[in-house]
Amino acid sequence: MEDKKKLQRREFIKKVGAGSLVAGGLAAGTTPVRAARKRFNWKLTTTWPPNFPIFQDGVKRFAKDVKKMSGGKLNISVFASGELIPAMQTFDAVSQGSVQMGHGAGYYWIGKIPAAAFFTAVPFGMNAQGMNAWLYSGGGLALWREIYEPFNLVPFPMGNTGVQMGGWFRKKIESVADLKGLKMRIPGLGGKVMAKAGVNPVLLAGGEIYTALDRGTIDATEWVGPFHDERLGLYRAAKYYYYPGWHEPGPTLELTINREAWEELPKEFQLIIENAATASNLWMLSEFEARNLDSLHTLKNKYKVEVLEFPADVIKQLRQYTAEVLDEEAKKDATFKKVYDAYNAYRKTNDAWNAISEASYAKALRL
Amino acid sequence: MEDKKKLQRREFIKKVGAGSLVAGGLAAGTTPVRAARKRFNWKLTTTWPPNFPIFQDGVKRFAKDVKKMSGGKLNISVFASGELIPAMQTFDAVSQGSVQMGHGAGYYWIGKIPAAAFFTAVPFGMNAQGMNAWLYSGGGLALWREIYEPFNLVPFPMGNTGVQMGGWFRKKIESVADLKGLKMRIPGLGGKVMAKAGVNPVLLAGGEIYTALDRGTIDATEWVGPFHDERLGLYRAAKYYYYPGWHEPGPTLELTINREAWEELPKEFQLIIENAATASNLWMLSEFEARNLDSLHTLKNKYKVEVLEFPADVIKQLRQYTAEVLDEEAKKDATFKKVYDAYNAYRKTNDAWNAISEASYAKALRL
Repeated sequence: MEDKKKLQRREFIKKVGAGSLVAGGLAAGTTPVRAARKRFNWKLTTTWPPNFPIFQDGVKRFAKDVKKMSGGKLNISVFASGELIPAMQTFDAVSQGSVQMGHGAGYYWIGKIPAAAFFTAVPFGMNAQGMNAWLYSGGGLALWREIYEPFNLVPFPMGNTGVQMGGWFRKKIESVADLKGLKMRIPGLGGKVMAKAGVNPVLLAGGEIYTALDRGTIDATEWVGPFHDERLGLYRAAKYYYYPGWHEPGPTLELTINREAWEELPKEFQLIIENAATASNLWMLSEFEARNLDSLHTLKNKYKVEVLEFPADVIKQLRQYTAEVLDEEAKKDATFKKVYDAYNAYRKTNDAWNAISEASYAKALRL
Repeated sequence: MEDKKKLQRREFIKKVGAGSLVAGGLAAGTTPVRAARKRFNWKLTTTWPPNFPIFQDGVKRFAKDVKKMSGGKLNISVFASGELIPAMQTFDAVSQGSVQMGHGAGYYWIGKIPAAAFFTAVPFGMNAQGMNAWLYSGGGLALWREIYEPFNLVPFPMGNTGVQMGGWFRKKIESVADLKGLKMRIPGLGGKVMAKAGVNPVLLAGGEIYTALDRGTIDATEWVGPFHDERLGLYRAAKYYYYPGWHEPGPTLELTINREAWEELPKEFQLIIENAATASNLWMLSEFEARNLDSLHTLKNKYKVEVLEFPADVIKQLRQYTAEVLDEEAKKDATFKKVYDAYNAYRKTNDAWNAISEASYAKALRL
């Protein structure tokens, strides 16, 4: 066992390159308290465009803090999507040890691990507060670690967008029938749910959305929330902006770390990463919450966007389709079923508490 | 300016005792990367009883993490209320430098700083998510720092209970008239609001509540939420358990640091504290959310507690009284008014975004 581990580590060192682990140059014993003598030069690749606000900026902030907290010894260089690794190869790159860290969202990897969707967001699933409670204090993170373990990855929650918007539509949606035949950019499980309503779900990278919507190649698209959607200029290509984001009600972003790289770290650096990732998780959510509201105001008042709530019948039907989609996925994949069951068990009691705490309080504010 | 600072630091060192700052014993230059050569032995006093779950446990977890992250160099000894400093002297003790750190809640100090209530919770104010967005990303924390500055304190958000419960009552509350003449343990602004409804608000420490309620010395009490209330055995002394906690809809707990002690720290240790406090902020909220629901189940099903929602008329009247109380306080104190105005300005846009995100989504789940 020990020998195998050493061998794996040696293999890993080869993979990440000789320059990435540098002895600190201190004789053993000169720092009796501090166990960490090595210096680490790590690479972190993300699934986000360079300078993507909050997402990429949040990752850079994390890396900067980790470097300072470690006294400059754990130096993480951050690369945007494509600068080193294409966005959709992040998972494999970290898994194989080409880089030590990745940042993205679990549901990008549902082709490999269908159950990974639960660690980001599922349609009509838990919001940010519910997800954090499940992950940190309800067994969710332990399950996530278990599911990613065969892929040689250690995951951490790091970032949350809060409730997203439902998307931009070129025509009004007044009934489920209005969805039929629409071409909509909507990935993952949300796309599968929409397909049941007769939508033709389309996959497009962020950079392609505006042109496709403007030219009418697609009729609708979801993206993030007011702050990011304003930057993408979507209000120039579609007039109706629907809420709520039933398909992504509080997506958790993920930090993934190559297991051997993680195990190489002294305990103090592991804790520095863990605390910085958790802090970053909350910081990013707070940024989304604080920035969305200004953009919402601009979209409504400056650009005269019609901000509309999905009709109740549409929501009820999509919720029904969601239950069908999740049940179908659970039949196809045992791991999906395992996580789905754990998620549902936690969620049931979470909803019961939420009903008399957040939901009752929200009602009290509007009475 | 420099000399004054040095003098203040020397003064501070005298105050906290000669043993609290110990040179690490390393010759300068042996750790070229790591600026921190000193070892710090700090004291943190809290307003919580020993072993108070989540609250005191969360603080101990924070101190343990900070110690490990700093390679053992920033060693924080945690003391419960009364072990070193009585709970209600925490603010002064940290302000004067008798200890370097404190943990409690801003609204404990409203006798000194009425505006401090806004940094914890005010009746019918923002919930945990709103508070975090305001503090971290909406200017709230900068304002908090400014308000605490004359007291020589640097505050950090560190913990949140989520929406609390409305309290335990020995008789049913069916109208505002039923509140009249009740003796209720409810501190701070919530007590002032209740007084307008004819309640006689009483101050009692946690350890005195159960006996007072059981003997009928008081007719009602608020405490925290299901998890803590179950432990206090309140279900044996009162039968009706009301929600929501309109008076404390997401109280933020605080870490305070003596300013000179803070300024003595190398930047890397400051960042370690900041990240650990933010991580702790989210962790404590997640723990509250996850534990409350099990206790709620036990209270309802095992102890046959009647869990009831405050009638709409009662809520509406209390909300009206709250507006009156806050306006009265703003007239009495310029700092209160300043923070109240900033809070309201942020809150207005926060509510607008919340209406189409969290509130609309919560509705979508219940349609």
